[in-house]
Amino acid sequence: MPSRPERKASLIVHDDRPYNAEPPLGRLRASYRTPAEDFYVRSHGDLPNLDSKTWRLTVVGRAGLTLTLSLDDLRTGFPMAALTATMQCAGNRRADMRAVAPVSGDPWEAGAIGTAEWTGIRLGDLLREAGIAEGVDRHVAFESHDTVDGRPYGVSIPLAKAMSPETLLAYAMNGEALLPEHGFPVRAVVLGYAGVRSPKWLRHIAVQDHPSDNPIQANDYKLYPADVTAETADPAKGYTIETMPVNAAICEPERGGVLIAGRNRVRGYAVCGDRAIARVDVSGNGGRSWRQADLEHEAGAPFAWTFWAADLDLPPGEHELTVRAWDTAGQTQPALPDDTWNHKGYLCTCWHRVRVSVTD
Amino acid sequence: MPSRPERKASLIVHDDRPYNAEPPLGRLRASYRTPAEDFYVRSHGDLPNLDSKTWRLTVVGRAGLTLTLSLDDLRTGFPMAALTATMQCAGNRRADMRAVAPVSGDPWEAGAIGTAEWTGIRLGDLLREAGIAEGVDRHVAFESHDTVDGRPYGVSIPLAKAMSPETLLAYAMNGEALLPEHGFPVRAVVLGYAGVRSPKWLRHIAVQDHPSDNPIQANDYKLYPADVTAETADPAKGYTIETMPVNAAICEPERGGVLIAGRNRVRGYAVCGDRAIARVDVSGNGGRSWRQADLEHEAGAPFAWTFWAADLDLPPGEHELTVRAWDTAGQTQPALPDDTWNHKGYLCTCWHRVRVSVTD
Repeated sequence: MPSRPERKASLIVHDDRPYNAEPPLGRLRASYRTPAEDFYVRSHGDLPNLDSKTWRLTVVGRAGLTLTLSLDDLRTGFPMAALTATMQCAGNRRADMRAVAPVSGDPWEAGAIGTAEWTGIRLGDLLREAGIAEGVDRHVAFESHDTVDGRPYGVSIPLAKAMSPETLLAYAMNGEALLPEHGFPVRAVVLGYAGVRSPKWLRHIAVQDHPSDNPIQANDYKLYPADVTAETADPAKGYTIETMPVNAAICEPERGGVLIAGRNRVRGYAVCGDRAIARVDVSGNGGRSWRQADLEHEAGAPFAWTFWAADLDLPPGEHELTVRAWDTAGQTQPALPDDTWNHKGYLCTCWHRVRVSVTD
Repeated sequence: MPSRPERKASLIVHDDRPYNAEPPLGRLRASYRTPAEDFYVRSHGDLPNLDSKTWRLTVVGRAGLTLTLSLDDLRTGFPMAALTATMQCAGNRRADMRAVAPVSGDPWEAGAIGTAEWTGIRLGDLLREAGIAEGVDRHVAFESHDTVDGRPYGVSIPLAKAMSPETLLAYAMNGEALLPEHGFPVRAVVLGYAGVRSPKWLRHIAVQDHPSDNPIQANDYKLYPADVTAETADPAKGYTIETMPVNAAICEPERGGVLIAGRNRVRGYAVCGDRAIARVDVSGNGGRSWRQADLEHEAGAPFAWTFWAADLDLPPGEHELTVRAWDTAGQTQPALPDDTWNHKGYLCTCWHRVRVSVTD
């Protein structure tokens, strides 16, 4: 039984076990839909070794109604749904927050994100089959085959989100079966939410009156104020991270790059949980002045990222390239990591800054 | 025919004609639902003098289908809908942006906002009666009885928003008929959007393939980058302001207030277009440290504001009290007006700062 996926030469590995890795940013920007082998991997435990023929999903719905479904049952029993959407880790860009003060967790650069066409079924269709209707203050709890500290990985999402067309159970990514490290044979894909709420290697789904009491849901992935420490954190007071905030990154050139003076093309991505991107500003001087990037919208917005590009005229010298995006409600990113710093290093959305040297 | 409403002693008047006025912040914070006479008034023209008995609304729906409806037709022909929601001007808090550099428009403080229970019908119910179904890239255009530069006031909203339960045609505010200055007899109430998209004194609604070409829609209420001026602004490139961003204000104490040293209660509001408020941070030292306010959520979120309160221990001296809110996607407000400054002074969301003197 493998404990971690095959190492991909293209990925920067933060941990071997559990396996956590992200692509270099230039590679990430190479295609709108991220190839599965370039897609970041965030694991909390060892890699489960599952057989799609014997895999079963149990669904506890209306009182007394439990479904047990095979992969074929999902494929043939429900309408197929395919959506292009971005998945990202709540810790994406944590490295920039760590530069201000120590934070826990892996030092992700801006590559803990990717976009794919996800194919599967709508979770709402399955829940309706299990006798579930819309309901206030109800939750859908997931359990998976991976284990963390001896317990199955588990999280939950609000029932309204689970019933919306934005939540899938996916068995394919970019038209191919999921790779083992991306949740084979079936994972949840909760559009616009942090990746933690889209569990891989699913085995059990239950509708209940309270959020999951699994430690991943109850204790981890909470947003705290800056003055809260690991010692003083009270999970009941932390805010449960779900929808992701507006964010952007420069993918090309890379940090520390050496450029030739003159016109240089800068490229990157911008994304906002459940809103589309309205504008992207790019600066060649650390944010003292800005120009607007060209946006390459593709089908999928608001739940999929927008690629952007801008030409900057750069004279010889050291320069700080900077980007910030605006969402459709006129909200933009904070200038500094200090503005939203928290000891877990979540939701780092400050202006992404890339220092480069420009030569004649 | 009156050109402006009766002056209310409680309001701070920015213009007499068109009449633009806002309540003092202490009065605004006095009740969760703002009394109609304390509610800010934003007018673009003279006050129409309408008779509810002869008033008619025309609705151009599916090709060949035009409805003409009286107020009684609205009241008796459709299910009644009542929602508590916040309305605010896109220029709310413009005064803080004007402190950085000149901007056009009235210098609204943080009172160009209010919350009411709006009663009327769902616009979607009316549009379905007019033969309209959901449709991509379609728009609902409104025309009103007030005139701006000789033309009727006109704006539009996307059809999807118009069909959602979040859009009303309201004939009552806090249980009473609309006051003349608030749109008697019928106005639109588009939840979460800037007030400009909720026209008062409605007379005509049309479903069409393009946004309204009225200058209010086509030219005004656009968000521009900081380097765009009145001379260089191209409305086709400006972003049409719809959903409002996360914002917060300190209502008590007031700016320049004199307090007694010791524990002082600070109160205000926080709001975010279509998201609920997750957290409010309050600072007694200009943002160098923060504490969390108590939130007084009421029914209505995410489309209605959250009142908050916090106790601060203030020693003698000059202090800058500051507030910032966080929405449910982990987005918060920029520190400075410079961060989002634009020459029209729209969407001012920087930390709200109130200087006070504290004596022994």
